[in-house]
Amino acid sequence: MSYKDKVYIEDLAKYAGQEVELNGWVYTKRGKGKLQFVILRDGTGICQCVVFKANVSEEVFANTKSLTQESSIKVKGKVVANERAPGGFELDTSDLQIYQLSTDYPITPKEHGDDFLIRNRHLWLRSSRQHAIMRVRASVIKAVRDFFDNSGFKLQDSPMFTPNACEGTSTLFSTKYFDLGEAFLSQSGQLYAEATAMAMGRVYTFGPAFRAEKSKTRKHLTEFWMVEPEMAFFDLEDDMQLAEDLTVYIVQYVLENCRKELETLERDITKLEAIQGNFPRMSYTEAVGWMNANDIPLTKRVDGKDVEIRPFPWGEDFGTPQEEALMEQFSQPCFIYDYPTEIKAFYMKRNPDNPKVVKAMDMLGPEKAGELVGGSQREDNVELLEERIKAEDLDMTDFAWYVDLRKYGSVPHSGFGMGIERVIKWITGAKHIRETIPFPRMIHRIIP
Amino acid sequence: MSYKDKVYIEDLAKYAGQEVELNGWVYTKRGKGKLQFVILRDGTGICQCVVFKANVSEEVFANTKSLTQESSIKVKGKVVANERAPGGFELDTSDLQIYQLSTDYPITPKEHGDDFLIRNRHLWLRSSRQHAIMRVRASVIKAVRDFFDNSGFKLQDSPMFTPNACEGTSTLFSTKYFDLGEAFLSQSGQLYAEATAMAMGRVYTFGPAFRAEKSKTRKHLTEFWMVEPEMAFFDLEDDMQLAEDLTVYIVQYVLENCRKELETLERDITKLEAIQGNFPRMSYTEAVGWMNANDIPLTKRVDGKDVEIRPFPWGEDFGTPQEEALMEQFSQPCFIYDYPTEIKAFYMKRNPDNPKVVKAMDMLGPEKAGELVGGSQREDNVELLEERIKAEDLDMTDFAWYVDLRKYGSVPHSGFGMGIERVIKWITGAKHIRETIPFPRMIHRIIP
Repeated sequence: MSYKDKVYIEDLAKYAGQEVELNGWVYTKRGKGKLQFVILRDGTGICQCVVFKANVSEEVFANTKSLTQESSIKVKGKVVANERAPGGFELDTSDLQIYQLSTDYPITPKEHGDDFLIRNRHLWLRSSRQHAIMRVRASVIKAVRDFFDNSGFKLQDSPMFTPNACEGTSTLFSTKYFDLGEAFLSQSGQLYAEATAMAMGRVYTFGPAFRAEKSKTRKHLTEFWMVEPEMAFFDLEDDMQLAEDLTVYIVQYVLENCRKELETLERDITKLEAIQGNFPRMSYTEAVGWMNANDIPLTKRVDGKDVEIRPFPWGEDFGTPQEEALMEQFSQPCFIYDYPTEIKAFYMKRNPDNPKVVKAMDMLGPEKAGELVGGSQREDNVELLEERIKAEDLDMTDFAWYVDLRKYGSVPHSGFGMGIERVIKWITGAKHIRETIPFPRMIHRIIP
Repeated sequence: MSYKDKVYIEDLAKYAGQEVELNGWVYTKRGKGKLQFVILRDGTGICQCVVFKANVSEEVFANTKSLTQESSIKVKGKVVANERAPGGFELDTSDLQIYQLSTDYPITPKEHGDDFLIRNRHLWLRSSRQHAIMRVRASVIKAVRDFFDNSGFKLQDSPMFTPNACEGTSTLFSTKYFDLGEAFLSQSGQLYAEATAMAMGRVYTFGPAFRAEKSKTRKHLTEFWMVEPEMAFFDLEDDMQLAEDLTVYIVQYVLENCRKELETLERDITKLEAIQGNFPRMSYTEAVGWMNANDIPLTKRVDGKDVEIRPFPWGEDFGTPQEEALMEQFSQPCFIYDYPTEIKAFYMKRNPDNPKVVKAMDMLGPEKAGELVGGSQREDNVELLEERIKAEDLDMTDFAWYVDLRKYGSVPHSGFGMGIERVIKWITGAKHIRETIPFPRMIHRIIP
């Protein structure tokens, strides 16, 4: 038998009335006397297997009664429509074989603490909520890749090992690299994507990124996945439009392909259906004006005390309190653009008419999703770029190849980064970012 | 104007007879008197822009004559069919503006040394061969993901940071991980994929993998991309069939979508068209028999000398000389399976009828492509697995979570790993693996 002939629960409707064989694990079991109900999970869905004593051998019925949570089994039977069964079909069982009886499976239907669950992440993934989040994750990533692959972009993987830091060295992981000294793990593939964009036109890089930040918030992982498109001849306006189109595409894709998972997660679907495009946009200066019109202060830690500064001073970065206050009025993501030069990275293009701001944008999500996208038009003037590299005390020799991109056919170009786990957290409504990746890596967590 | 209205060279056929605007770089330029031919590349293709003095302003014509290799420009004109032009269309130019005149572009049409080119990798990517290989790379990866996404598999990313080693510690990169000691960079996502397969049924993990091997062959990178499917309820036979189906799918996809690139690379397409399925299969024992029937010895380095050992002794691993000799007879990849237990990894399933062999397989490619796939059915018996972990002196506490997968609903399962750069090298005919990834990382190379 070819592996292609295997039958999975999510396809049961195709086999209505037929005898099939299913393989999977016992999710739960209940029974009374001559009737046993085995709820089977096979990774694609849940199926109720009805085992009636009169229809199976004595051995099979005894085996069925012995089944425990997460025991692995093979079940044969006829697919029967039943409106009340999960998925709309159940199995009228004729045979059941045990691969292994599981004993003392640690995750029981009772409530477990967060720490216990994360220590058992390899098993926790089998629980219905985590299983649903992981399926949404796969769909979000597929949506991202399809969006770019079908829009003329070419995937160009940026390297993980880098000789230099894109955004400061204090938050970098490093490793000894043969006789070449230290290599750093990439925080962003952007600089390399700029090089490949000059070769391929429109590219995206999509891989792990690493930040050794000591933050313990619900939004940070030390290892996360980021997609970073980079486009020659795109200005900031094009960049924002692309980020908006991508976001709408992802949400619509999940709505179309993960309805069942969103139900399992009890996600309010109307919030996602509101993501239709025409996202609001606001310059940084306008956003500061909004803060002050609404009496939202800058909050700062000064001498161990939280201090509120009013009015919010132009030039300071927004933090979570300001972002969440601003976003309360919006049901779609909002772009903030034209940020102060001082608080943004060296590679961002200064506004020629007003060098105090750079052509940068952040896309904030609704429902306290935080920053989902950060991007900019890139500095394409070689002298201005070199000036910024020097001003930031970065090593010019490390960036020689990057400066080359402004020497040999420099063009206006833009790009952004989207943190995939943040997007998954927003779409699924997961309560902590560690639930959005199969094996989260955090300050205090590297096992399993 | 929306970014969606931008016109790219690969789509020119759609605009025949229309005025369009193209943006790109000067690949080459030639001219005589009143007629200049600018060969423009925009990342999607090459277009000849014909600039006739009478059709443009004096300034534009002077600018055109001043153009140098890799200068960045915007060109306006009418799309005209011309059979002899690359791509079948050319631009009858009405306007041309310069973004930047490039001076002394380092990569000229003359021959450059390998070392020079790799040091200028950020620019070398613009050359036609490298550009073609990178486009094939994007297509190979898209083919892999489409194959799995459309066959019921769910992407489940394995972590990069791991507390333990899957295949020995000597070839691992490590980093300080906060207060948790050392973390190692993953060599393989397999062990984690086994956990996610028990939750999702059929999964694949596809990300960077790291090997600190001091090999300087044409087939090794320290950082490479690997796709690793893992399937609950698949045996070794299913595993091989899946690897075969994947390989055929990738090759057919590239043949359909990268015809132009394969022509640029002067690849012998008939060799790829031969990849149709029904790959030959041979047990390890049969392969040893073949070596001895064909007088292929084991080659070993003993006391600083190369020694040939005849007959090839059962139990020794094949190396490049043996693999290439064996593969000369085949125009498709070949599976070797049922390897000696001693030379294979601890997690592979021992043959219950003959514990001296494990249910492992390698898929060797034709045309000296080497090992493209390595996989196995996994040990699903908890006692046998623990025995192997102990025998290999691995730390049992590190593998506690992995052993759990055999305690709680153990099932027969299988998987494999496919090194993407090896596949790209084979399909494109690239002479060195460093040409198959945008920014190759090797023992002596981490810049750019």
